Amino acid sequence: MAIIDLTEAQLADYDPVREEPADFDAFWRETLAEARKHDLDPVFTPVSTALATVQVHDVTFSGWAGDRIKGWLLLPAAASGPLPCVVEYIGYNCGRATPYQWLLAPAAGFATLVVDNRGQGSYLPGDTPDPNPEPRGGSGNGYLTRDLGDPRRHYYRRLMTDAVRAVEVARAHPAVDGSRIAVTGGSQGGGLALTVAGLVPDLAAVVAHAPFLCYYRRASQATDAHPYFEITRYLRTNTDRIEQTFQTLSYFDAVNHAARITAPTLISVPLMDDVCPPSTTMAAYRHCAGPKRLKVWPYGDHSGGETHSAGLTAEFLAEHLG
Amino acid sequence: MAIIDLTEAQLADYDPVREEPADFDAFWRETLAEARKHDLDPVFTPVSTALATVQVHDVTFSGWAGDRIKGWLLLPAAASGPLPCVVEYIGYNCGRATPYQWLLAPAAGFATLVVDNRGQGSYLPGDTPDPNPEPRGGSGNGYLTRDLGDPRRHYYRRLMTDAVRAVEVARAHPAVDGSRIAVTGGSQGGGLALTVAGLVPDLAAVVAHAPFLCYYRRASQATDAHPYFEITRYLRTNTDRIEQTFQTLSYFDAVNHAARITAPTLISVPLMDDVCPPSTTMAAYRHCAGPKRLKVWPYGDHSGGETHSAGLTAEFLAEHLG
Amino acid sequence: MAIIDLTEAQLADYDPVREEPADFDAFWRETLAEARKHDLDPVFTPVSTALATVQVHDVTFSGWAGDRIKGWLLLPAAASGPLPCVVEYIGYNCGRATPYQWLLAPAAGFATLVVDNRGQGSYLPGDTPDPNPEPRGGSGNGYLTRDLGDPRRHYYRRLMTDAVRAVEVARAHPAVDGSRIAVTGGSQGGGLALTVAGLVPDLAAVVAHAPFLCYYRRASQATDAHPYFEITRYLRTNTDRIEQTFQTLSYFDAVNHAARITAPTLISVPLMDDVCPPSTTMAAYRHCAGPKRLKVWPYGDHSGGETHSAGLTAEFLAEHLG
Amino acid sequence: MAIIDLTEAQLADYDPVREEPADFDAFWRETLAEARKHDLDPVFTPVSTALATVQVHDVTFSGWAGDRIKGWLLLPAAASGPLPCVVEYIGYNCGRATPYQWLLAPAAGFATLVVDNRGQGSYLPGDTPDPNPEPRGGSGNGYLTRDLGDPRRHYYRRLMTDAVRAVEVARAHPAVDGSRIAVTGGSQGGGLALTVAGLVPDLAAVVAHAPFLCYYRRASQATDAHPYFEITRYLRTNTDRIEQTFQTLSYFDAVNHAARITAPTLISVPLMDDVCPPSTTMAAYRHCAGPKRLKVWPYGDHSGGETHSAGLTAEFLAEHLG
Amino acid sequence: MAIIDLTEAQLADYDPVREEPADFDAFWRETLAEARKHDLDPVFTPVSTALATVQVHDVTFSGWAGDRIKGWLLLPAAASGPLPCVVEYIGYNCGRATPYQWLLAPAAGFATLVVDNRGQGSYLPGDTPDPNPEPRGGSGNGYLTRDLGDPRRHYYRRLMTDAVRAVEVARAHPAVDGSRIAVTGGSQGGGLALTVAGLVPDLAAVVAHAPFLCYYRRASQATDAHPYFEITRYLRTNTDRIEQTFQTLSYFDAVNHAARITAPTLISVPLMDDVCPPSTTMAAYRHCAGPKRLKVWPYGDHSGGETHSAGLTAEFLAEHLG
Amino acid sequence: MAIIDLTEAQLADYDPVREEPADFDAFWRETLAEARKHDLDPVFTPVSTALATVQVHDVTFSGWAGDRIKGWLLLPAAASGPLPCVVEYIGYNCGRATPYQWLLAPAAGFATLVVDNRGQGSYLPGDTPDPNPEPRGGSGNGYLTRDLGDPRRHYYRRLMTDAVRAVEVARAHPAVDGSRIAVTGGSQGGGLALTVAGLVPDLAAVVAHAPFLCYYRRASQATDAHPYFEITRYLRTNTDRIEQTFQTLSYFDAVNHAARITAPTLISVPLMDDVCPPSTTMAAYRHCAGPKRLKVWPYGDHSGGETHSAGLTAEFLAEHLG
Repeated sequence: MAIIDLTEAQLADYDPVREEPADFDAFWRETLAEARKHDLDPVFTPVSTALATVQVHDVTFSGWAGDRIKGWLLLPAAASGPLPCVVEYIGYNCGRATPYQWLLAPAAGFATLVVDNRGQGSYLPGDTPDPNPEPRGGSGNGYLTRDLGDPRRHYYRRLMTDAVRAVEVARAHPAVDGSRIAVTGGSQGGGLALTVAGLVPDLAAVVAHAPFLCYYRRASQATDAHPYFEITRYLRTNTDRIEQTFQTLSYFDAVNHAARITAPTLISVPLMDDVCPPSTTMAAYRHCAGPKRLKVWPYGDHSGGETHSAGLTAEFLAEHLG
Repeated sequence: MAIIDLTEAQLADYDPVREEPADFDAFWRETLAEARKHDLDPVFTPVSTALATVQVHDVTFSGWAGDRIKGWLLLPAAASGPLPCVVEYIGYNCGRATPYQWLLAPAAGFATLVVDNRGQGSYLPGDTPDPNPEPRGGSGNGYLTRDLGDPRRHYYRRLMTDAVRAVEVARAHPAVDGSRIAVTGGSQGGGLALTVAGLVPDLAAVVAHAPFLCYYRRASQATDAHPYFEITRYLRTNTDRIEQTFQTLSYFDAVNHAARITAPTLISVPLMDDVCPPSTTMAAYRHCAGPKRLKVWPYGDHSGGETHSAGLTAEFLAEHLG
Repeated sequence: MAIIDLTEAQLADYDPVREEPADFDAFWRETLAEARKHDLDPVFTPVSTALATVQVHDVTFSGWAGDRIKGWLLLPAAASGPLPCVVEYIGYNCGRATPYQWLLAPAAGFATLVVDNRGQGSYLPGDTPDPNPEPRGGSGNGYLTRDLGDPRRHYYRRLMTDAVRAVEVARAHPAVDGSRIAVTGGSQGGGLALTVAGLVPDLAAVVAHAPFLCYYRRASQATDAHPYFEITRYLRTNTDRIEQTFQTLSYFDAVNHAARITAPTLISVPLMDDVCPPSTTMAAYRHCAGPKRLKVWPYGDHSGGETHSAGLTAEFLAEHLG
Repeated sequence: MAIIDLTEAQLADYDPVREEPADFDAFWRETLAEARKHDLDPVFTPVSTALATVQVHDVTFSGWAGDRIKGWLLLPAAASGPLPCVVEYIGYNCGRATPYQWLLAPAAGFATLVVDNRGQGSYLPGDTPDPNPEPRGGSGNGYLTRDLGDPRRHYYRRLMTDAVRAVEVARAHPAVDGSRIAVTGGSQGGGLALTVAGLVPDLAAVVAHAPFLCYYRRASQATDAHPYFEITRYLRTNTDRIEQTFQTLSYFDAVNHAARITAPTLISVPLMDDVCPPSTTMAAYRHCAGPKRLKVWPYGDHSGGETHSAGLTAEFLAEHLG
Repeated sequence: MAIIDLTEAQLADYDPVREEPADFDAFWRETLAEARKHDLDPVFTPVSTALATVQVHDVTFSGWAGDRIKGWLLLPAAASGPLPCVVEYIGYNCGRATPYQWLLAPAAGFATLVVDNRGQGSYLPGDTPDPNPEPRGGSGNGYLTRDLGDPRRHYYRRLMTDAVRAVEVARAHPAVDGSRIAVTGGSQGGGLALTVAGLVPDLAAVVAHAPFLCYYRRASQATDAHPYFEITRYLRTNTDRIEQTFQTLSYFDAVNHAARITAPTLISVPLMDDVCPPSTTMAAYRHCAGPKRLKVWPYGDHSGGETHSAGLTAEFLAEHLG
Repeated sequence: MAIIDLTEAQLADYDPVREEPADFDAFWRETLAEARKHDLDPVFTPVSTALATVQVHDVTFSGWAGDRIKGWLLLPAAASGPLPCVVEYIGYNCGRATPYQWLLAPAAGFATLVVDNRGQGSYLPGDTPDPNPEPRGGSGNGYLTRDLGDPRRHYYRRLMTDAVRAVEVARAHPAVDGSRIAVTGGSQGGGLALTVAGLVPDLAAVVAHAPFLCYYRRASQATDAHPYFEITRYLRTNTDRIEQTFQTLSYFDAVNHAARITAPTLISVPLMDDVCPPSTTMAAYRHCAGPKRLKVWPYGDHSGGETHSAGLTAEFLAEHLG
């Protein structure tokens, strides 16, 4: 069926239970505290491009363990005075690519900080390695399944911490008005946006399109598409690690982070999404604690509202950052 | 194999023969003369968007048979004085979508005219109908196979004429410097750009990424992917119309148009493209008569150089329009 | 699962709601009145074939807007006196093909009028163009999605009107007994048969195998197979046209036409049909207002009962036309 | 590529070598002599159908080992005097189905004997079992791979002998003119037609569309589609039986039989056939020893010329049986 | 969905009804009595291999109708005294292959008798033909659909009888302790193990991983994967044989055999098995009458617990045979 | 085509050029020297299993950078005196799994050391993490594409070094006769066996079935199957890193290592292998410098000779280790 998960009617009554470890807040408090022992040390280096209306800076900053993370900062060339800034997170297995990829927010008049994903880069090229000095146990071939044996070693602890620190980077730039920061993204980028919004106070807006990283247990049963299939494939083989796996992943479940959001949040849910099934993305919406807006795309696949998503994003940002 | 058509080595020696009808130039001279009997009547209507650095205008003009064709004109908000203009053609079964889709050229400092595809719009939404008052014979379900019985009735006669007139629209706007017009596009948009460049003199630059609409006979044997498969499917059934079909299509073969180009032209050819096989796109390059530049993507599929294509385009345009 | 839609048990209790516009009857009354302003002008021209027991005539008549529609009339060579006639409608993207395709009804002793589908012809070749002088709005690449913006412009208004007039053509031929006309078809042909049976009184029998054109809203959610997928693909992009689309399609929903049928009707429903899901074809049966017979094929896919369908049809026709 | 085997140009120069065992003729002479020890004992039983212009008889006769083989005999109802007869063989994994399936030849004015395939019947239902009292060695799951260890035990020895005897059945019926017998079929039916034509003298015509059972060695390397894939799958596992397999199959290679044909023969070759690759069907044409006609379908898949094949067949039969 | 059949929660309440013919026990009593009229005549011939710790014997014995069935007997080389013996049945379309394939049980210290599948051998090579002297009616191309018209002719009557007699063979060897026999297998081998355990008293243990041959009616609706799809394909064509088919198959339904088991039984059920859906394998567990153990693999596909299944089997056998 | 790469005839003349960096030997000399600064420190811990004829030891030793690598040592329980030892390497994305997985070599009378793959484990579970403290640049999601920017950081430098040290581990165990060590494996395990055989002198035998890690440049053009597709996907995006990528991979090309082998070597090449195309595996055979034996499987896919491979391996080992 085209509707492969829940229908719009079923989603209306849908009330999924969250799995949250007792030390969730402590885990993240310690994680961020440990990361912040490293000086953020943001470096902004102008980059020459063929763009006339946008100023581009190569960005480097310290993420988890002080690892140096790359990004792009794009500023509307004609702007003056502190600008709102959109921190943009990127999809699965993608890196920051080229500056030409990220023109929406500057065209809308905002500064944009695009945050590279450590270790990723097959679908959009990346420039940030993922050092992993003390892993534990074997792994699957995928980011979701790297070191599931211990949440302190898991890949997403590193990536999510990078994402949090990126907001600090944005606030550190003189052209940015630190009181008007939005976090945005689609798919993995959407999951990271929700996560950061649960961990960082005082954000002005959150946009998550068809977010990944939500409700892993349900996802692994509701779809056999990548990347959630990494979990399925891993547990098919590692049959004795099922509960441990979901225990570890619960620290990195954007549904749990969404339950801590306070900023205005837009979540979009395409009902024919077989990559991030609506029963998982809708769980994030249901538990989102901030003022929230839902956009359902009844016929959308993982691309959601396609060309319309850009306008939706721009208008939501204009409303909350303008 | 990942290389499903010709290898880079085979393409080096590749010298395909063109199939050109004797009255090719007459056909197009008459076609354009007939179309120009209708007043171009370009209408530019400002549109409100969430974009700060780009001014957007809804565009309407007369294409083939005076049919009213839609488009977007995007102007860099901060610019003054006549600007170079990029006329952008769009891929197969796509329409002009929203203005948010077309931010590259304005960010590069150029005016941009985005031209809707009549009758198309399943992958990006469109707003232009395709009236077809006097068709001849049955048809396949696809634009390539609409009225193959007579080149004067064929769908691409109408679409390509719209594309030619779009250059006149760009030149009619006061913010545009008519001596600095580029035509660009990928896939069907690339085929249209080559076509227009063969029919319109005095263009400043041409960019065609992985162009569709090239060397139909070879294409129908070299791939079973859509949309060229429309031809295969049509001829599988209409077994007595093979030569008539290629006779009709030869008027709309961008390879023949490329042989008439005089402007500087960039053509990109991904070697693992199964939608527009390299033996067809390379044919356009081989026969291109203007000063030309080839960009081969050895591992590219139909998306070509992906994120890198935008930079390549922007730099080529800066060089020739700047 | 092999059963991808409803099971036989679920179908037993199935009672779907119809979506019918208030002006449904008026719309069709006006449509047919407008079409009948054009003289039917049926032309029957003998055709030479290698068939010995069947006389073949090429047929031309005026359908919607007076457009000339093609067909075949096959008569049992040995028959004398007015014959019952089977009006046969054809599947999606198929045309009338060759006379050799349509030998069942003449072998059963009936005249047969095979009605070409305007504009179609990739899977069986066709000979009838689809003039479309005043379309409105962009379209998808498919017959279902041609001009969804206004029911008066939609493709199926034209095709269904042709189908109605074909009954008048059959009745106009001297070898045909106009009181014994059956309408038959499978898939799109089945949908057309139901439609005509709802619009034309005094038919003797109706046969619809796995009918297409039924309950579009459900269909677009119940399958991702073509051709219903055309709707899904169109609405995925044209996100703001969902209600308008189903509003337009409701005039062409064979379920609504079935609710007006008075003739004896046979509908077959294969339970493993992923092209025309049983929840849509069964809706036509549930609402069919005539004396009706249901044939369920528990293991049938869209081909239904395969070789058995021919015998089923022939026997039902013999019973009602004989 | 759409052309997955040889191109039309390559086929023009194509001269494949046959693999023929030294005792090929002796093998078949003994096989048929052994079969003919059993009385043919044809039984024709009238069957009631809804067909008016065709008289149908259920047929039973003794094939290999005296096993009773089923068939249909269809006679044009209005005919008198001895008629030419078309012996029709059926495709892979199909049985004789219902009489409604076989209306072309009677409509063309010929008697038709449709010959059931022993043991087959998943795609069209069959009524003939395949007793196999003394097989040798393990087998694959398919007719091609049943008892490859010894040509005397192989499935196709039985089926091909049935096919030869069917001609004798046709000649035994009083309504049939035994001097005007054609053998026809597509796919497996085409391979059987070629085989019978090589084994039975005095036939009037042979028609083989996209024949299966040709040039097994090449076929197993040229396609991974079923049913030739049965060989590949079998030899993938039974790695030490490669030469034995092709030795056994050489007795049943329709290319070897074609080299013995004397009757006028029509062979059709679709160039995009991935089931029976053109390099295998063309081998049958190249070696066909009778007066021969080739029909190439440049865009045809295994369905060949689709609706056009029926007319082609009817006209060829009319020319040679008329 | 990854879960394509029932969820773990649904399976908890699952209570499927068995379809058992009234003469089930009589049928099998007569079948085995008839088979036992033939002398078992087991022949054990030493085979030279590169194995040092295992003695291998080629085995031949009389199965159904006295047909000679092949097998391997593997004995731990260092063992002395009567040993427990594991009778191993093999998966669908597989034969006994080479002795190297069957090293688990000997490594665990048990004798092993591996039983060839008559007529099978495309995925693992086999050496046992399937004589079938008096079949009835046409067949599909598959073991499940060979002679469904009469349970006395059906393929699985022969195969299951061979399997029963194999236990007698094991007990006939002097190195084997006949009071400690286990029957084991996966997929078809698992279905055979359950069947034999229902027909043979005094077994010491039964292991069935993801058993095939269970609950055919449900299976044919719950999956479209092979080999159950053979039933679907057969009934799609043979539309009038649905009840006859399931009537015949009910004699060979391992669920009915499981209801007669008395030995300790381990059944494993992978929840993402699309070959043998959990609703069918779980039916065998629910009705299993012996002391039973269930192992659910929540993320398992038809391979079940993969590498873990071997250990599970070895430990269960050690517990019950040790 | 079933033959998707080179035919047996083409392979007969095939003479591929190796790409070897000038400092290849120096690179590996330094790599191994650096690794050997860490004490090997092999730890053998008895493990209790249900196996009676095999003694199992859990193994831990120091691989690259002193990282602790896991393995299994299996000894035939009945053996005495120093035994030949088979060092077994494992396929892509697999770990050491359970001891039950590795029974062939012990059954043949040899000690076996099974070597875990660091960081892998989705298809067979693993227990060895892959610390990666100083990566450079972004990466693709796969082992082949982890840190392609510098051969000293690349994943396979670490894995191949582990593999070399495993031979030292085998030689360190008192039950092993260090002069009779074989290295074996299939796919990635085969590539590792060739690599180790090129780096370690005095081995007694080498077996590589369908080896992976050979001739990367050709592989990335000859197949679009995983895992070589990782390279294609990576270079599709990272268009400017093509030469750097193959420069890095040339240090880890088993073809270059094969050119340094001195021990007797068996390489098997399945001609229908789309995972490791024959043009790549045959390159390893062509350049293998030791006494060598080729086994071609004409119909083999990546599984090669399937059940026959085990016997082939056992016999080759018996010949050279016996």
